Amino acid sequence: MADYRELWSKLGIDLEKHDKLCAVLPELYGGTYLTQKNRPEGMNYFNFVVAEVHGLRIKELDEHKKSGGKVVGTFCVFVPDEVIFAAGAIGVGLCAGSQFWVEDGEKVLPRNMCPLIKAFMGAKVGGTCPYFQSCDMVIGETTCDGKKKAWEVLDDYVPVYVMELPQMKREKNYAQWIEEIKEFISKMEELTGNKVTVDTLREGIRIANLKRKALKRLYDLRKYKPSPISGLDVLLISQIAFYDDPKRFVEKLNELCDELDERVKNGVDEGKKRLMITGTPMALPNWKLHSIIEGLNAQVVVEETCTGTRYFENEVDEKGETIDDLIKNIADRYMKINCACFTPNTGRIDDIIKYTDEYNVDGVIDFNLSFCHTYAVEHKAVEESLKEKNIPVMQIETDYSTEDSGQIKTRVEAFLEML
Amino acid sequence: MADYRELWSKLGIDLEKHDKLCAVLPELYGGTYLTQKNRPEGMNYFNFVVAEVHGLRIKELDEHKKSGGKVVGTFCVFVPDEVIFAAGAIGVGLCAGSQFWVEDGEKVLPRNMCPLIKAFMGAKVGGTCPYFQSCDMVIGETTCDGKKKAWEVLDDYVPVYVMELPQMKREKNYAQWIEEIKEFISKMEELTGNKVTVDTLREGIRIANLKRKALKRLYDLRKYKPSPISGLDVLLISQIAFYDDPKRFVEKLNELCDELDERVKNGVDEGKKRLMITGTPMALPNWKLHSIIEGLNAQVVVEETCTGTRYFENEVDEKGETIDDLIKNIADRYMKINCACFTPNTGRIDDIIKYTDEYNVDGVIDFNLSFCHTYAVEHKAVEESLKEKNIPVMQIETDYSTEDSGQIKTRVEAFLEML
Repeated sequence: MADYRELWSKLGIDLEKHDKLCAVLPELYGGTYLTQKNRPEGMNYFNFVVAEVHGLRIKELDEHKKSGGKVVGTFCVFVPDEVIFAAGAIGVGLCAGSQFWVEDGEKVLPRNMCPLIKAFMGAKVGGTCPYFQSCDMVIGETTCDGKKKAWEVLDDYVPVYVMELPQMKREKNYAQWIEEIKEFISKMEELTGNKVTVDTLREGIRIANLKRKALKRLYDLRKYKPSPISGLDVLLISQIAFYDDPKRFVEKLNELCDELDERVKNGVDEGKKRLMITGTPMALPNWKLHSIIEGLNAQVVVEETCTGTRYFENEVDEKGETIDDLIKNIADRYMKINCACFTPNTGRIDDIIKYTDEYNVDGVIDFNLSFCHTYAVEHKAVEESLKEKNIPVMQIETDYSTEDSGQIKTRVEAFLEML
Repeated sequence: MADYRELWSKLGIDLEKHDKLCAVLPELYGGTYLTQKNRPEGMNYFNFVVAEVHGLRIKELDEHKKSGGKVVGTFCVFVPDEVIFAAGAIGVGLCAGSQFWVEDGEKVLPRNMCPLIKAFMGAKVGGTCPYFQSCDMVIGETTCDGKKKAWEVLDDYVPVYVMELPQMKREKNYAQWIEEIKEFISKMEELTGNKVTVDTLREGIRIANLKRKALKRLYDLRKYKPSPISGLDVLLISQIAFYDDPKRFVEKLNELCDELDERVKNGVDEGKKRLMITGTPMALPNWKLHSIIEGLNAQVVVEETCTGTRYFENEVDEKGETIDDLIKNIADRYMKINCACFTPNTGRIDDIIKYTDEYNVDGVIDFNLSFCHTYAVEHKAVEESLKEKNIPVMQIETDYSTEDSGQIKTRVEAFLEML
């Protein structure tokens, strides 16, 4: 890796602490990813991205900023990338998937909160994430109590702008969301000094859709028996999708999919059990559950999560004459996301049932980050609907620590034997 | 107590389980309340209400229903009583303050949720609350993730109607809340068959305001040194305010205040430390923290909670020619409530600081029901603002179990010594 210390230093990184993080990641990645057998060649690009995780992309952000561009951080699939692209900014979905950041997060947040929130807060408070340090602004949303209130604390460290996501999906809620997107456009125009026009917004939509199409293509390939790619690799790709350069990402992902097309033709089914993960997001580098499952010779073939289908399903309609038309199209697409933050959220159950068929799933693991109330309460409905279809389901609630890994392994093992 | 078993049975109460609840309450009440020395005579009415907690009032609800009236249950100070009154319904703020109900709640909800939500769910699931059993409908709201999602589960047991409370207090949020109140009026009209008119709504406002005035009068009396009434007694009165007949309640409370006016004249200051409780609500019969504090010879003189100032502060303007005028007045008053469900919520900090002066407070206990994220995150801001004013503050996070009572007592004792 090139020496980026000068750049990190300029960004206000706590170099000493950051070194500790940099020391952990390669080992974790090596043990989890590079030990996989028969990986597609196309994964080399993503290996490279991980190797350069705090390097090359940070340099790109720096160059963008040097030429007057802005960088905004996001933490949720509801913040419309289309608008960020249209305003000429770079959006980075901030990673918050490591136990490393939790301790610093707990300095300013309660302990019994979801690890994702504590981790992103800790990354900023401790100054150990160069992405976060590159952000001119963070775009928050009101998807859960934890994040909604954490923005207030985070705002002491970096400017935070919060979009109010409606809590229901009635007709008036669509109108409210349209208004929020309009205000977000104004905010981004103010931040970047660039006017969002019909043309730039349409181009923003096009780029975001290309990403969705490529991810959808990848996921469709997993429907084959056997899936031509591990769940671990797909999870990594999904995680990288949040912060990589979108055009390069799409190109590289499509190259990988070309290779997978070939693999599918020669696939020999080894009878691995096919699992769906549903529930809460897995931010980089949270590979804990996938690693356990695939270490047990089963395969994760679909994630109904924010780092899975909820991120790419449904494209934004690119047709429309006016900016209002396009904004409406954006609002429509985002309101189709079946997040547990809505009440009711029966569409998510429909999605899960649909995916069990489409992906030929043997069993479902309902994954819940500790203290995430919305998904935890929905578990009952998820379980009931899957039981009706005779599909085994197990709930796993965990955080980023490895303390319970042994216990989870035992439980997953027992679950797999039952399938 | 008269024999209400026939009535309870008709309501579908699990009599055997309910007997266990009835067996616990008198002892708890006796030990906590009746051992207090020199209580005002006027507390006799409230003793009587507790003695008849599942009796007389339930009979009143039954008679109301027999004559075609409706009963609606609520769990939050944001559901406007004015509308319920105007529609000729009886509103009961459902109690959810006992560990007794938690076990049944955990059958359908995650364990790591706030005890209030688990308790109300358990009361319904177990069929042990005659108020709940009397409800034709429950009115929920989107004030926190836990409740928002719990309504979906509760709806399997009793019809639930959910009001969407905005998450911010921008101008458009006021308009959204006005719309929600209008829809709530339609819902109540549909349920009761009674049209809400300017006159009935104004009368509803008047009744709700009378309650607020009486509670405000009670709280104002606590500002004297010494307060003429214990925190425990005021807490009980506040809890009873949620479900007692409003006119009788106001009359009896004002009688008590007349007596307290006399007491104030002869008050001799014993130098008891004066505490404010801020934070999450204490539903009947959650007297745990007050009981510990006042057992240590300190006095709770104000609660900045939903079972305290947030319930009665600010009246609804009774002036207005049209129903829209009155609805706007209602919306304005409710949007003044500084609940942690809003972001930002700096008004709450202002309230807390104001009360420390008005009530001559020596120290503040920030009380947090376990797993209530919104108030837990606000603790940092509460603490910082109080420290700036040199007012000692301590956070206590607890649930309804008595397991930690000893530990809390030790901590409160140490805190009091420090004041």
